[in-house]
Amino acid sequence: MGTKKKHGKKHGKKHKKKGEKGSGSPFSDALRVSDGFVLADVDQRSTPAFDGDKQEGKDALVAADGEMDDLQERLYAQSRSGGRRRVLLVIQGMDTSGKGGIMRHVVGAVDPQGTQITAFKAPTAEEKEHPFLWRIRNALPQPGMIGVFDRSHYEDVLVVRVHDLVPPAQWKRRYATINDFEESLVEDDVTLIKVMLHISANEQKERLMERLERPDKYWKFNPGDLDEREFWDDYQQAYQVIMDRCSPERAPWFVVPADRKWYARLAVQQILLEHLRDLDLRWPEADFDVEANKERLQAM
Amino acid sequence: MGTKKKHGKKHGKKHKKKGEKGSGSPFSDALRVSDGFVLADVDQRSTPAFDGDKQEGKDALVAADGEMDDLQERLYAQSRSGGRRRVLLVIQGMDTSGKGGIMRHVVGAVDPQGTQITAFKAPTAEEKEHPFLWRIRNALPQPGMIGVFDRSHYEDVLVVRVHDLVPPAQWKRRYATINDFEESLVEDDVTLIKVMLHISANEQKERLMERLERPDKYWKFNPGDLDEREFWDDYQQAYQVIMDRCSPERAPWFVVPADRKWYARLAVQQILLEHLRDLDLRWPEADFDVEANKERLQAM
Repeated sequence: MGTKKKHGKKHGKKHKKKGEKGSGSPFSDALRVSDGFVLADVDQRSTPAFDGDKQEGKDALVAADGEMDDLQERLYAQSRSGGRRRVLLVIQGMDTSGKGGIMRHVVGAVDPQGTQITAFKAPTAEEKEHPFLWRIRNALPQPGMIGVFDRSHYEDVLVVRVHDLVPPAQWKRRYATINDFEESLVEDDVTLIKVMLHISANEQKERLMERLERPDKYWKFNPGDLDEREFWDDYQQAYQVIMDRCSPERAPWFVVPADRKWYARLAVQQILLEHLRDLDLRWPEADFDVEANKERLQAM
Repeated sequence: MGTKKKHGKKHGKKHKKKGEKGSGSPFSDALRVSDGFVLADVDQRSTPAFDGDKQEGKDALVAADGEMDDLQERLYAQSRSGGRRRVLLVIQGMDTSGKGGIMRHVVGAVDPQGTQITAFKAPTAEEKEHPFLWRIRNALPQPGMIGVFDRSHYEDVLVVRVHDLVPPAQWKRRYATINDFEESLVEDDVTLIKVMLHISANEQKERLMERLERPDKYWKFNPGDLDEREFWDDYQQAYQVIMDRCSPERAPWFVVPADRKWYARLAVQQILLEHLRDLDLRWPEADFDVEANKERLQAM
Protein backbone atom coordinates (compact mmCIF):
# COMPACT_ATOMS: atom_id res chain seq x y z
CA MET A 1 0.00 0.00 0.00
CA GLY A 2 1.31 3.43 -0.91
CA THR A 3 2.18 5.83 1.87
CA LYS A 4 -0.59 8.31 2.48
CA LYS A 5 0.94 11.73 2.34
CA LYS A 6 -0.42 14.03 5.00
CA HIS A 7 0.37 17.49 3.79
CA GLY A 8 -2.68 19.55 4.23
CA LYS A 9 -5.87 19.59 2.15
CA LYS A 10 -4.98 17.52 -0.85
CA HIS A 11 -6.39 15.06 -3.23
CA GLY A 12 -5.72 11.72 -1.59
CA LYS A 13 -2.65 10.29 -3.27
CA LYS A 14 -3.08 6.71 -2.10
CA HIS A 15 -3.38 4.56 -5.20
CA LYS A 16 -4.19 0.95 -4.49
CA LYS A 17 -4.03 -2.15 -6.61
CA LYS A 18 -7.10 -4.23 -7.08
CA GLY A 19 -7.54 -6.86 -4.39
CA GLU A 20 -5.06 -5.19 -2.08
CA LYS A 21 -5.93 -5.30 1.59
CA GLY A 22 -6.18 -2.32 3.90
CA SER A 23 -8.82 0.38 3.85
CA GLY A 24 -11.96 -0.82 2.15
CA SER A 25 -12.46 2.55 0.54
CA PRO A 26 -9.72 3.03 -2.05
CA PHE A 27 -11.66 5.35 -4.35
CA SER A 28 -12.99 7.51 -1.54
CA ASP A 29 -9.55 7.71 0.04
CA ALA A 30 -7.87 8.59 -3.24
CA LEU A 31 -10.36 11.26 -4.29
CA ARG A 32 -11.38 12.91 -1.01
CA VAL A 33 -10.52 16.58 -0.68
CA SER A 34 -8.57 17.55 2.42
CA ASP A 35 -6.61 20.61 3.62
CA GLY A 36 -4.30 22.08 1.03
CA PHE A 37 -6.13 20.64 -1.96
CA VAL A 38 -5.37 22.45 -5.22
CA LEU A 39 -7.84 21.85 -8.03
CA ALA A 40 -5.40 23.01 -10.70
CA ASP A 41 -3.00 20.22 -9.65
CA VAL A 42 -5.44 17.44 -10.52
CA ASP A 43 -4.78 15.64 -13.79
CA GLN A 44 -8.20 15.29 -15.42
CA ARG A 45 -7.07 12.23 -17.37
CA SER A 46 -5.72 10.35 -14.37
CA THR A 47 -7.44 7.28 -12.90
CA PRO A 48 -6.66 7.22 -9.15
CA ALA A 49 -7.24 3.93 -7.33
CA PHE A 50 -7.66 2.06 -10.61
CA ASP A 51 -4.88 0.43 -12.59
CA GLY A 52 -6.97 -1.07 -15.38
CA ASP A 53 -7.73 0.18 -18.87
CA LYS A 54 -11.00 1.33 -20.42
CA GLN A 55 -12.43 -2.12 -21.03
CA GLU A 56 -11.47 -3.28 -17.54
CA GLY A 57 -13.08 -0.15 -16.15
CA LYS A 58 -16.32 -0.84 -18.00
CA ASP A 59 -16.27 -4.45 -16.86
CA ALA A 60 -15.68 -3.39 -13.25
CA LEU A 61 -18.66 -1.03 -13.45
CA VAL A 62 -21.00 -3.79 -14.56
CA ALA A 63 -19.48 -6.31 -12.14
CA ALA A 64 -20.49 -4.16 -9.17
CA ASP A 65 -24.17 -4.03 -10.16
CA GLY A 66 -25.13 -7.00 -8.01
CA GLU A 67 -23.61 -5.67 -4.81
CA MET A 68 -25.11 -2.24 -5.45
CA ASP A 69 -28.56 -3.78 -5.92
CA ASP A 70 -28.20 -5.74 -2.71
CA LEU A 71 -27.06 -2.78 -0.61
CA GLN A 72 -29.69 -0.45 -2.05
CA GLU A 73 -32.42 -2.95 -1.29
CA ARG A 74 -31.20 -3.35 2.30
CA LEU A 75 -31.19 0.42 2.76
CA TYR A 76 -34.74 0.59 1.46
CA ALA A 77 -35.87 -2.40 3.51
CA GLN A 78 -34.56 -0.81 6.69
CA SER A 79 -36.73 2.24 6.11
CA ARG A 80 -39.77 0.00 6.11
CA SER A 81 -38.92 -0.95 9.69
CA GLY A 82 -38.47 2.62 10.83
CA GLY A 83 -34.87 3.18 9.74
CA ARG A 84 -34.10 6.83 8.93
CA ARG A 85 -30.86 6.45 6.99
CA ARG A 86 -30.80 7.88 3.45
CA VAL A 87 -28.12 8.81 0.98
CA LEU A 88 -27.67 12.08 -0.87
CA LEU A 89 -25.29 12.08 -3.80
CA VAL A 90 -24.52 15.58 -5.07
CA ILE A 91 -23.06 15.81 -8.58
CA GLN A 92 -21.45 19.03 -9.77
CA GLY A 93 -19.28 19.82 -12.76
CA MET A 94 -18.82 22.12 -15.72
CA ASP A 95 -21.04 21.77 -18.81
CA THR A 96 -20.34 18.47 -20.62
CA SER A 97 -18.47 17.06 -17.60
CA GLY A 98 -20.64 13.95 -17.76
CA LYS A 99 -23.33 14.53 -15.15
CA GLY A 100 -25.94 13.01 -17.44
CA GLY A 101 -23.79 9.95 -18.00
CA ILE A 102 -23.54 9.43 -14.25
CA MET A 103 -27.33 9.58 -13.99
CA ARG A 104 -27.75 7.15 -16.83
CA HIS A 105 -24.99 4.64 -16.23
CA VAL A 106 -24.41 4.72 -12.47
CA VAL A 107 -27.71 5.82 -10.94
CA GLY A 108 -29.60 4.17 -13.80
CA ALA A 109 -28.16 0.77 -12.86
CA VAL A 110 -29.87 0.93 -9.46
CA ASP A 111 -33.53 0.03 -8.90
CA PRO A 112 -35.41 3.21 -9.89
CA GLN A 113 -37.82 2.64 -7.00
CA GLY A 114 -34.96 3.34 -4.60
CA THR A 115 -33.44 6.37 -6.29
CA GLN A 116 -34.66 9.88 -6.86
CA ILE A 117 -32.92 12.27 -9.23
CA THR A 118 -33.50 16.00 -8.96
CA ALA A 119 -32.03 18.27 -11.63
CA PHE A 120 -31.63 21.86 -10.50
CA LYS A 121 -31.93 24.40 -13.30
CA ALA A 122 -31.89 28.18 -13.06
CA PRO A 123 -34.33 28.98 -10.22
CA THR A 124 -37.95 29.71 -11.11
CA ALA A 125 -39.71 32.90 -10.08
CA GLU A 126 -41.23 31.04 -7.12
CA GLU A 127 -37.88 29.59 -6.07
CA LYS A 128 -36.28 33.03 -6.21
CA GLU A 129 -38.77 34.29 -3.65
CA HIS A 130 -37.39 31.82 -1.09
CA PRO A 131 -33.96 31.41 0.53
CA PHE A 132 -31.61 29.51 -1.79
CA LEU A 133 -31.82 26.31 0.27
CA TRP A 134 -35.61 26.16 0.08
CA ARG A 135 -35.81 24.12 -3.12
CA ILE A 136 -32.96 21.94 -1.88
CA ARG A 137 -34.76 21.07 1.36
CA ASN A 138 -37.87 20.22 -0.64
CA ALA A 139 -35.93 17.67 -2.68
CA LEU A 140 -34.14 15.82 0.13
CA PRO A 141 -34.46 12.03 -0.07
CA GLN A 142 -36.88 10.19 2.18
CA PRO A 143 -35.56 7.48 4.53
CA GLY A 144 -34.35 4.43 2.61
CA MET A 145 -33.81 6.36 -0.61
CA ILE A 146 -30.74 7.31 -2.58
CA GLY A 147 -31.32 10.90 -3.63
CA VAL A 148 -29.19 12.30 -6.42
CA PHE A 149 -28.78 15.99 -7.18
CA ASP A 150 -27.80 16.95 -10.72
CA ARG A 151 -26.37 20.35 -9.74
CA SER A 152 -27.31 21.62 -6.30
CA HIS A 153 -27.09 24.44 -3.77
CA TYR A 154 -23.49 24.84 -4.89
CA GLU A 155 -24.74 26.59 -8.03
CA ASP A 156 -25.58 29.41 -5.62
CA VAL A 157 -21.86 29.93 -5.05
CA LEU A 158 -20.82 29.05 -8.62
CA VAL A 159 -22.84 30.65 -11.41
CA VAL A 160 -24.19 33.13 -8.88
CA ARG A 161 -20.68 34.12 -7.79
CA VAL A 162 -19.18 34.21 -11.28
CA HIS A 163 -21.91 36.52 -12.55
CA ASP A 164 -22.80 38.30 -9.30
CA LEU A 165 -26.43 37.28 -9.72
CA VAL A 166 -26.98 38.46 -6.16
CA PRO A 167 -24.91 41.10 -4.31
CA PRO A 168 -21.47 39.75 -3.25
CA ALA A 169 -22.26 40.29 0.43
CA GLN A 170 -25.08 37.84 -0.03
CA TRP A 171 -23.26 35.02 -1.81
CA LYS A 172 -20.29 35.37 0.51
CA ARG A 173 -22.46 34.38 3.47
CA ARG A 174 -23.58 31.23 1.73
CA TYR A 175 -20.48 29.16 2.38
CA ALA A 176 -21.15 29.22 6.11
CA THR A 177 -24.86 28.66 5.54
CA ILE A 178 -24.09 25.62 3.41
CA ASN A 179 -21.75 24.18 6.03
CA ASP A 180 -24.40 24.53 8.74
CA PHE A 181 -27.03 23.01 6.48
CA GLU A 182 -24.90 20.03 5.53
CA GLU A 183 -23.90 19.44 9.16
CA SER A 184 -27.59 19.26 10.02
CA LEU A 185 -28.12 16.71 7.26
CA VAL A 186 -25.30 14.53 8.52
CA GLU A 187 -26.78 14.73 12.03
CA ASP A 188 -30.13 13.72 10.57
CA ASP A 189 -28.99 10.33 9.21
CA VAL A 190 -28.12 11.55 5.73
CA THR A 191 -25.05 9.98 4.17
CA LEU A 192 -23.86 12.95 2.14
CA ILE A 193 -21.55 12.35 -0.81
CA LYS A 194 -20.44 15.38 -2.82
CA VAL A 195 -18.76 14.75 -6.16
CA MET A 196 -17.20 17.17 -8.60
CA LEU A 197 -16.65 15.81 -12.10
CA HIS A 198 -13.46 17.55 -13.15
CA ILE A 199 -12.80 17.96 -16.87
CA SER A 200 -10.18 19.95 -18.74
CA ALA A 201 -10.99 22.90 -20.97
CA ASN A 202 -9.76 20.95 -23.98
CA GLU A 203 -12.02 18.03 -23.24
CA GLN A 204 -14.98 20.38 -22.96
CA LYS A 205 -14.13 21.83 -26.34
CA GLU A 206 -14.20 18.38 -27.92
CA ARG A 207 -17.47 17.46 -26.28
CA LEU A 208 -19.14 20.70 -27.30
CA MET A 209 -17.86 20.26 -30.85
CA GLU A 210 -19.40 16.82 -31.01
CA ARG A 211 -22.78 18.34 -30.19
CA LEU A 212 -22.33 20.69 -33.14
CA GLU A 213 -21.28 17.94 -35.52
CA ARG A 214 -24.05 15.42 -34.89
CA PRO A 215 -27.67 16.32 -35.69
CA ASP A 216 -28.84 13.88 -32.98
CA LYS A 217 -26.87 15.99 -30.48
CA TYR A 218 -28.01 19.45 -31.55
CA TRP A 219 -30.72 19.46 -28.91
CA LYS A 220 -28.08 19.27 -26.19
CA PHE A 221 -26.34 22.39 -27.44
CA ASN A 222 -27.13 25.92 -26.42
CA PRO A 223 -25.19 28.92 -27.73
CA GLY A 224 -25.15 30.14 -24.12
CA ASP A 225 -22.78 27.23 -23.36
CA LEU A 226 -20.08 29.13 -25.26
CA ASP A 227 -20.79 32.32 -23.34
CA GLU A 228 -20.26 30.37 -20.13
CA ARG A 229 -17.09 28.81 -21.48
CA GLU A 230 -15.59 32.31 -21.64
CA PHE A 231 -15.72 32.26 -17.82
CA TRP A 232 -13.84 28.97 -17.49
CA ASP A 233 -11.14 30.33 -15.19
CA ASP A 234 -13.64 32.10 -12.97
CA TYR A 235 -15.54 28.86 -12.53
CA GLN A 236 -12.37 26.97 -11.70
CA GLN A 237 -11.61 29.55 -9.05
CA ALA A 238 -15.13 29.35 -7.67
CA TYR A 239 -14.76 25.57 -7.37
CA GLN A 240 -11.41 26.04 -5.60
CA VAL A 241 -13.09 28.29 -3.04
CA ILE A 242 -15.75 25.65 -2.46
CA MET A 243 -13.08 23.05 -1.80
CA ASP A 244 -11.32 25.44 0.57
CA ARG A 245 -14.41 26.42 2.51
CA CYS A 246 -16.97 23.62 2.24
CA SER A 247 -15.11 20.36 2.58
CA PRO A 248 -15.12 19.62 6.32
CA GLU A 249 -14.28 16.16 7.57
CA ARG A 250 -17.91 15.11 7.96
CA ALA A 251 -19.00 16.45 4.58
CA PRO A 252 -15.99 16.28 2.28
CA TRP A 253 -15.88 16.70 -1.47
CA PHE A 254 -14.63 14.05 -3.84
CA VAL A 255 -13.00 15.42 -6.98
CA VAL A 256 -13.20 12.86 -9.78
CA PRO A 257 -10.97 13.25 -12.85
CA ALA A 258 -13.51 13.13 -15.66
CA ASP A 259 -11.80 13.43 -19.01
CA ARG A 260 -12.21 9.67 -19.27
CA LYS A 261 -15.92 9.01 -19.00
CA TRP A 262 -15.47 5.34 -18.14
CA TYR A 263 -13.27 6.22 -15.18
CA ALA A 264 -15.55 8.94 -13.83
CA ARG A 265 -18.51 6.54 -13.89
CA LEU A 266 -16.57 3.80 -12.17
CA ALA A 267 -15.20 6.17 -9.55
CA VAL A 268 -18.61 7.61 -8.65
CA GLN A 269 -20.10 4.13 -8.46
CA GLN A 270 -17.28 2.91 -6.22
CA ILE A 271 -17.45 5.93 -3.92
CA LEU A 272 -21.17 5.35 -3.51
CA LEU A 273 -20.61 1.64 -2.93
CA GLU A 274 -17.90 2.27 -0.35
CA HIS A 275 -20.23 4.53 1.59
CA LEU A 276 -23.07 2.01 1.45
CA ARG A 277 -20.79 -0.76 2.67
CA ASP A 278 -19.81 1.36 5.66
CA LEU A 279 -23.45 1.54 6.76
CA ASP A 280 -23.41 -2.16 7.67
CA LEU A 281 -26.93 -2.63 6.32
CA ARG A 282 -28.83 -5.67 7.64
CA TRP A 283 -32.14 -7.14 6.60
CA PRO A 284 -34.81 -6.12 9.10
CA GLU A 285 -36.22 -8.78 11.42
CA ALA A 286 -39.79 -9.94 10.81
CA ASP A 287 -42.20 -7.94 12.96
CA PHE A 288 -44.89 -10.61 12.54
CA ASP A 289 -45.23 -14.29 13.40
CA VAL A 290 -43.65 -16.02 10.41
CA GLU A 291 -44.89 -19.53 11.17
CA ALA A 292 -48.45 -18.45 11.95
CA ASN A 293 -48.62 -16.56 8.65
CA LYS A 294 -47.22 -19.53 6.76
CA GLU A 295 -49.92 -21.74 8.20
CA ARG A 296 -52.64 -19.29 7.38
CA LEU A 297 -51.42 -18.88 3.81
CA GLN A 298 -51.04 -22.62 3.33
CA ALA A 299 -54.72 -23.08 4.18
CA MET A 300 -55.92 -20.43 1.71
CA MET B 1 -50.77 -13.49 -40.11
CA GLY B 2 -53.57 -14.99 -38.06
CA THR B 3 -57.08 -13.78 -38.64
CA LYS B 4 -58.11 -11.21 -36.10
CA LYS B 5 -61.37 -12.38 -34.60
CA LYS B 6 -63.85 -9.60 -34.09
CA HIS B 7 -66.22 -10.89 -31.49
CA GLY B 8 -66.80 -8.10 -29.09
CA LYS B 9 -64.58 -6.88 -26.24
CA LYS B 10 -61.99 -9.60 -26.02
CA HIS B 11 -58.37 -10.12 -25.42
CA GLY B 12 -56.82 -9.81 -28.86
CA LYS B 13 -56.26 -13.35 -30.14
CA LYS B 14 -53.82 -12.50 -32.88
CA HIS B 15 -50.61 -14.38 -32.13
CA LYS B 16 -47.75 -13.54 -34.43
CA LYS B 17 -44.48 -15.20 -35.14
CA LYS B 18 -41.29 -13.24 -34.74
CA GLY B 19 -40.28 -11.43 -37.88
CA GLU B 20 -43.70 -11.80 -39.44
CA LYS B 21 -44.88 -8.81 -41.41
CA GLY B 22 -48.10 -6.93 -40.89
CA SER B 23 -49.09 -4.78 -37.94
CA GLY B 24 -46.04 -3.44 -36.15
CA SER B 25 -47.74 -3.84 -32.81
CA PRO B 26 -48.09 -7.56 -32.12
CA PHE B 27 -48.04 -7.33 -28.32
CA SER B 28 -50.44 -4.41 -28.16
CA ASP B 29 -52.78 -6.10 -30.62
CA ALA B 30 -52.69 -9.41 -28.75
CA LEU B 31 -53.25 -7.96 -25.29
CA ARG B 32 -55.58 -5.02 -25.89
CA VAL B 33 -58.97 -5.27 -24.20
CA SER B 34 -61.97 -4.79 -26.44
CA ASP B 35 -65.74 -5.37 -26.23
CA GLY B 36 -66.71 -8.70 -24.72
CA PHE B 37 -63.43 -9.23 -22.87
CA VAL B 38 -63.69 -11.74 -20.03
CA LEU B 39 -60.87 -11.59 -17.49
CA ALA B 40 -61.59 -15.09 -16.20
CA ASP B 41 -60.92 -16.48 -19.68
CA VAL B 42 -57.32 -15.28 -19.75
CA ASP B 43 -54.69 -17.94 -19.10
CA GLN B 44 -52.21 -16.33 -16.71
CA ARG B 45 -49.41 -18.60 -17.89
CA SER B 46 -49.89 -17.89 -21.59
CA THR B 47 -47.43 -15.85 -23.64
CA PRO B 48 -49.43 -14.12 -26.41
CA ALA B 49 -47.44 -12.73 -29.36
CA PHE B 50 -44.30 -14.56 -28.24
CA ASP B 51 -43.31 -18.07 -29.28
CA GLY B 52 -39.97 -18.25 -27.46
CA ASP B 53 -39.04 -19.77 -24.13
CA LYS B 54 -37.83 -18.09 -20.94
CA GLN B 55 -34.25 -17.56 -22.05
CA GLU B 56 -35.34 -16.22 -25.41
CA GLY B 57 -37.75 -13.91 -23.61
CA LYS B 58 -35.00 -12.56 -21.39
CA ASP B 59 -32.72 -12.11 -24.38
CA ALA B 60 -35.44 -10.27 -26.28
CA LEU B 61 -35.92 -7.92 -23.32
CA VAL B 62 -32.26 -6.94 -23.27
CA ALA B 63 -32.06 -6.78 -27.06
CA ALA B 64 -34.67 -4.02 -27.14
CA ASP B 65 -32.75 -1.74 -24.75
CA GLY B 66 -30.99 0.15 -27.51
CA GLU B 67 -34.15 1.02 -29.42
CA MET B 68 -35.90 2.01 -26.20
CA ASP B 69 -33.01 4.33 -25.28
CA ASP B 70 -33.10 5.92 -28.70
CA LEU B 71 -36.86 6.52 -28.71
CA GLN B 72 -36.90 7.82 -25.14
CA GLU B 73 -34.13 10.27 -25.92
CA ARG B 74 -35.97 11.52 -29.02
CA LEU B 75 -39.13 12.02 -26.97
CA TYR B 76 -37.16 14.00 -24.41
CA ALA B 77 -35.27 15.98 -27.05
CA GLN B 78 -38.55 17.04 -28.69
CA SER B 79 -39.73 18.55 -25.43
CA ARG B 80 -36.68 20.79 -25.44
CA SER B 81 -37.94 22.30 -28.68
CA GLY B 82 -41.45 22.88 -27.40
CA GLY B 83 -42.92 19.40 -28.01
CA ARG B 84 -45.74 18.53 -25.60
CA ARG B 85 -45.90 14.75 -26.08
CA ARG B 86 -45.43 12.61 -22.94
CA VAL B 87 -46.17 9.03 -22.03
CA LEU B 88 -48.07 7.74 -19.03
CA LEU B 89 -47.75 4.04 -18.27
CA VAL B 90 -50.22 2.88 -15.62
CA ILE B 91 -49.43 -0.42 -13.92
CA GLN B 92 -52.08 -2.23 -11.90
CA GLY B 93 -52.23 -5.74 -10.50
CA MET B 94 -52.89 -7.80 -7.39
CA ASP B 95 -50.24 -8.00 -4.65
CA THR B 96 -47.13 -9.88 -5.88
CA SER B 97 -48.21 -9.53 -9.52
CA GLY B 98 -44.81 -8.13 -10.35
CA LYS B 99 -45.29 -4.38 -10.43
CA GLY B 100 -41.95 -3.87 -8.71
CA GLY B 101 -40.22 -6.10 -11.25
CA ILE B 102 -41.63 -3.98 -14.07
CA MET B 103 -40.26 -0.86 -12.41
CA ARG B 104 -36.88 -2.44 -11.93
CA HIS B 105 -36.37 -4.38 -15.13
CA VAL B 106 -38.41 -2.49 -17.73
CA VAL B 107 -38.56 1.11 -16.51
CA GLY B 108 -35.14 0.71 -14.85
CA ALA B 109 -33.55 -0.05 -18.23
CA VAL B 110 -34.50 3.41 -19.49
CA ASP B 111 -32.49 6.57 -18.73
CA PRO B 112 -33.72 7.63 -15.27
CA GLN B 113 -33.58 11.27 -16.36
CA GLY B 114 -36.42 10.57 -18.75
CA THR B 115 -38.67 8.51 -16.49
CA GLN B 116 -40.63 9.34 -13.38
CA ILE B 117 -42.16 6.63 -11.20
CA THR B 118 -44.95 7.48 -8.77
CA ALA B 119 -46.13 4.82 -6.34
CA PHE B 120 -49.62 5.43 -5.01
CA LYS B 121 -50.21 4.08 -1.52
CA ALA B 122 -53.28 4.43 0.66
CA PRO B 123 -54.15 8.15 0.47
CA THR B 124 -52.77 10.46 3.14
CA ALA B 125 -54.98 12.68 5.28
CA GLU B 126 -54.24 15.59 2.93
CA GLU B 127 -55.01 13.54 -0.16
CA LYS B 128 -58.31 12.42 1.32
CA GLU B 129 -59.40 16.04 1.62
CA HIS B 130 -59.23 16.40 -2.15
CA PRO B 131 -61.10 14.69 -5.01
CA PHE B 132 -59.56 11.30 -5.78
CA LEU B 133 -57.93 12.55 -9.01
CA TRP B 134 -56.10 15.40 -7.25
CA ARG B 135 -52.99 13.43 -6.39
CA ILE B 136 -53.06 11.84 -9.84
CA ARG B 137 -53.09 15.20 -11.61
CA ASN B 138 -50.19 16.34 -9.44
CA ALA B 139 -48.09 13.39 -10.62
CA LEU B 140 -48.68 13.63 -14.38
CA PRO B 141 -45.50 13.54 -16.45
CA GLN B 142 -44.07 16.72 -17.93
CA PRO B 143 -43.57 16.98 -21.72
CA GLY B 144 -40.84 14.64 -22.94
CA MET B 145 -41.10 12.34 -19.93
CA ILE B 146 -42.25 8.77 -19.50
CA GLY B 147 -44.34 8.79 -16.34
CA VAL B 148 -45.05 5.47 -14.67
CA PHE B 149 -47.77 4.90 -12.08
CA ASP B 150 -47.31 1.99 -9.68
CA ARG B 151 -51.02 1.71 -8.84
CA SER B 152 -53.19 4.66 -9.80
CA HIS B 153 -56.64 6.24 -9.76
CA TYR B 154 -57.97 2.74 -10.44
CA GLU B 155 -57.38 1.88 -6.80
CA ASP B 156 -60.31 4.21 -6.19
CA VAL B 157 -62.58 1.69 -7.92
CA LEU B 158 -60.68 -1.38 -6.69
CA VAL B 159 -59.80 -1.45 -2.98
CA VAL B 160 -62.33 1.34 -2.43
CA ARG B 161 -65.09 -0.67 -4.12
CA VAL B 162 -64.22 -4.00 -2.53
CA HIS B 163 -64.26 -2.51 0.97
CA ASP B 164 -66.75 0.31 0.40
CA LEU B 165 -64.23 2.82 1.69
CA VAL B 166 -66.54 5.54 0.42
CA PRO B 167 -70.33 5.24 -0.05
CA PRO B 168 -71.22 3.13 -3.14
CA ALA B 169 -73.00 6.05 -4.78
CA GLN B 170 -69.67 7.83 -4.72
CA TRP B 171 -67.44 5.13 -6.17
CA LYS B 172 -70.02 4.26 -8.81
CA ARG B 173 -69.69 7.75 -10.28
CA ARG B 174 -65.96 7.35 -10.61
CA TYR B 175 -65.95 5.19 -13.75
CA ALA B 176 -67.43 8.03 -15.78
CA THR B 177 -65.15 10.55 -14.07
CA ILE B 178 -62.13 8.43 -14.96
CA ASN B 179 -63.20 8.14 -18.60
CA ASP B 180 -63.58 11.91 -18.88
CA PHE B 181 -60.24 12.47 -17.18
CA GLU B 182 -58.40 10.04 -19.42
CA GLU B 183 -60.02 11.47 -22.53
CA SER B 184 -58.71 14.89 -21.50
CA LEU B 185 -55.21 13.43 -21.10
CA VAL B 186 -55.29 11.87 -24.54
CA GLU B 187 -56.43 15.22 -25.97
CA ASP B 188 -53.53 16.87 -24.15
CA ASP B 189 -50.76 14.92 -25.92
CA VAL B 190 -50.49 12.15 -23.34
CA THR B 191 -49.85 8.69 -24.74
CA LEU B 192 -51.75 6.68 -22.14
CA ILE B 193 -50.91 3.00 -21.70
CA LYS B 194 -52.84 1.08 -19.05
CA VAL B 195 -51.53 -2.35 -18.08
CA MET B 196 -52.97 -4.94 -15.73
CA LEU B 197 -50.54 -7.62 -14.63
CA HIS B 198 -52.77 -10.65 -14.35
CA ILE B 199 -51.66 -13.46 -12.03
CA SER B 200 -53.48 -16.55 -10.79
CA ALA B 201 -54.43 -17.12 -7.16
CA ASN B 202 -52.04 -20.07 -7.03
CA GLU B 203 -49.14 -18.02 -8.29
CA GLN B 204 -49.84 -15.39 -5.66
CA LYS B 205 -49.79 -18.07 -3.00
CA GLU B 206 -46.34 -19.21 -4.10
CA ARG B 207 -44.97 -15.69 -4.22
CA LEU B 208 -46.32 -14.81 -0.78
CA MET B 209 -44.91 -18.06 0.61
CA GLU B 210 -41.48 -17.15 -0.74
CA ARG B 211 -41.60 -13.92 1.24
CA LEU B 212 -42.26 -15.97 4.37
CA GLU B 213 -39.48 -18.43 3.68
CA ARG B 214 -36.63 -16.02 2.96
CA PRO B 215 -35.41 -13.65 5.69
CA ASP B 216 -34.26 -11.20 3.00
CA LYS B 217 -37.90 -11.05 1.81
CA TYR B 218 -39.63 -10.62 5.18
CA TRP B 219 -39.69 -6.86 4.74
CA LYS B 220 -41.90 -7.25 1.69
CA PHE B 221 -44.51 -9.20 3.64
CA ASN B 222 -47.38 -7.71 5.54
CA PRO B 223 -49.95 -9.88 7.36
CA GLY B 224 -52.57 -7.59 5.82
CA ASP B 225 -51.67 -9.12 2.44
CA LEU B 226 -53.43 -12.30 3.58
CA ASP B 227 -56.49 -10.36 4.69
CA GLU B 228 -56.67 -8.91 1.20
CA ARG B 229 -56.20 -12.32 -0.38
CA GLU B 230 -59.50 -13.37 1.22
CA PHE B 231 -61.15 -10.89 -1.17
CA TRP B 232 -59.54 -12.36 -4.29
CA ASP B 233 -62.82 -12.96 -6.13
CA ASP B 234 -64.14 -9.51 -5.30
CA TYR B 235 -61.01 -7.95 -6.73
CA GLN B 236 -61.25 -10.03 -9.89
CA GLN B 237 -64.80 -8.82 -10.32
CA ALA B 238 -63.78 -5.21 -9.69
CA TYR B 239 -61.14 -5.56 -12.42
CA GLN B 240 -63.72 -7.02 -14.78
CA VAL B 241 -65.95 -4.00 -14.23
CA ILE B 242 -63.02 -1.72 -15.03
CA MET B 243 -62.43 -3.57 -18.29
CA ASP B 244 -66.13 -3.31 -19.11
CA ARG B 245 -66.46 0.36 -18.32
CA CYS B 246 -63.06 2.02 -18.70
CA SER B 247 -61.47 0.58 -21.82
CA PRO B 248 -62.60 2.87 -24.63
CA GLU B 249 -60.83 2.79 -27.98
CA ARG B 250 -58.66 5.81 -27.23
CA ALA B 251 -57.66 4.63 -23.74
CA PRO B 252 -57.77 0.84 -23.76
CA TRP B 253 -56.41 -1.57 -21.16
CA PHE B 254 -53.80 -4.18 -21.88
CA VAL B 255 -54.13 -7.31 -19.78
CA VAL B 256 -50.76 -9.06 -19.51
CA PRO B 257 -50.61 -12.69 -18.34
CA ALA B 258 -48.14 -12.43 -15.47
CA ASP B 259 -47.58 -15.85 -13.93
CA ARG B 260 -44.35 -15.94 -15.91
CA LYS B 261 -42.39 -12.89 -14.80
CA TRP B 262 -40.11 -12.92 -17.82
CA TYR B 263 -43.09 -12.77 -20.17
CA ALA B 264 -44.84 -9.98 -18.29
CA ARG B 265 -41.70 -7.84 -18.40
CA LEU B 266 -41.15 -8.46 -22.08
CA ALA B 267 -44.80 -7.76 -22.89
CA VAL B 268 -44.89 -4.45 -21.01
CA GLN B 269 -41.63 -3.38 -22.62
CA GLN B 270 -42.89 -4.27 -26.07
CA ILE B 271 -46.23 -2.52 -25.58
CA LEU B 272 -44.38 0.61 -24.51
CA LEU B 273 -41.98 0.30 -27.44
CA GLU B 274 -44.81 -0.18 -29.93
CA HIS B 275 -46.48 2.99 -28.68
CA LEU B 276 -43.24 4.97 -28.85
CA ARG B 277 -42.61 3.78 -32.41
CA ASP B 278 -46.04 5.00 -33.43
CA LEU B 279 -45.13 8.53 -32.34
CA ASP B 280 -42.68 8.85 -35.26
CA LEU B 281 -40.20 10.75 -33.09
CA ARG B 282 -37.63 12.86 -34.95
CA TRP B 283 -34.59 14.70 -33.69
CA PRO B 284 -35.37 18.42 -33.42
CA GLU B 285 -33.76 20.80 -35.89
CA ALA B 286 -31.06 23.14 -34.61
CA ASP B 287 -32.56 26.50 -33.63
CA PHE B 288 -29.15 28.16 -33.79
CA ASP B 289 -26.52 28.72 -36.48
CA VAL B 290 -24.47 25.53 -36.40
CA GLU B 291 -21.56 26.75 -38.48
CA ALA B 292 -21.23 30.09 -36.67
CA ASN B 293 -21.11 28.29 -33.31
CA LYS B 294 -18.53 25.81 -34.62
CA GLU B 295 -16.33 28.70 -35.67
CA ARG B 296 -16.71 30.47 -32.38
CA LEU B 297 -15.91 27.31 -30.41
CA GLN B 298 -12.93 26.49 -32.61
CA ALA B 299 -11.40 29.86 -31.75
CA MET B 300 -11.84 29.42 -27.98
